[in-house]
Amino acid sequence: MAMFMDVHHGMAGITAEQLKAAHEADLAAQGAEGVEFRQAWADPDSGTVYCLSSAPSREAVQRVHERTGHPADEVHPVPLQV
Amino acid sequence: MAMFMDVHHGMAGITAEQLKAAHEADLAAQGAEGVEFRQAWADPDSGTVYCLSSAPSREAVQRVHERTGHPADEVHPVPLQV
Repeated sequence: MAMFMDVHHGMAGITAEQLKAAHEADLAAQGAEGVEFRQAWADPDSGTVYCLSSAPSREAVQRVHERTGHPADEVHPVPLQV
Repeated sequence: MAMFMDVHHGMAGITAEQLKAAHEADLAAQGAEGVEFRQAWADPDSGTVYCLSSAPSREAVQRVHERTGHPADEVHPVPLQV
């Protein structure tokens, strides 16, 4: 399993409730793809959301996000962590 | 203290050792600004580095990164987290 950081743009005004609902939808859908979403952070002013996951591939991360209605604009493998 | 996600571009080819050295330089410099860097992730292929911190302001985060020679391209407050 590799680690991935995905980024969503255009989410200006996102609320804590909306972030929680989106994350919970991802958690409910992730099993079929072998993805495990770990954390997510949102900046409602710039409309940016970052999601950290472990997953078998970039495509698996994106398929979960597509299935729950919020495809990511970028999905980056992040093999290096400190 | 607020949470921030900062992003560095143009870091293609960054190694684990370089990420560790940059993070340790930030940890050594952060005290003067009241910043606490928590985690960092790097994608050597796209040259993207993400740093998560708690800090009194966006400017404080950037000042630490400038002092250690790697100013961020973006510093986003991320008040929402799951």
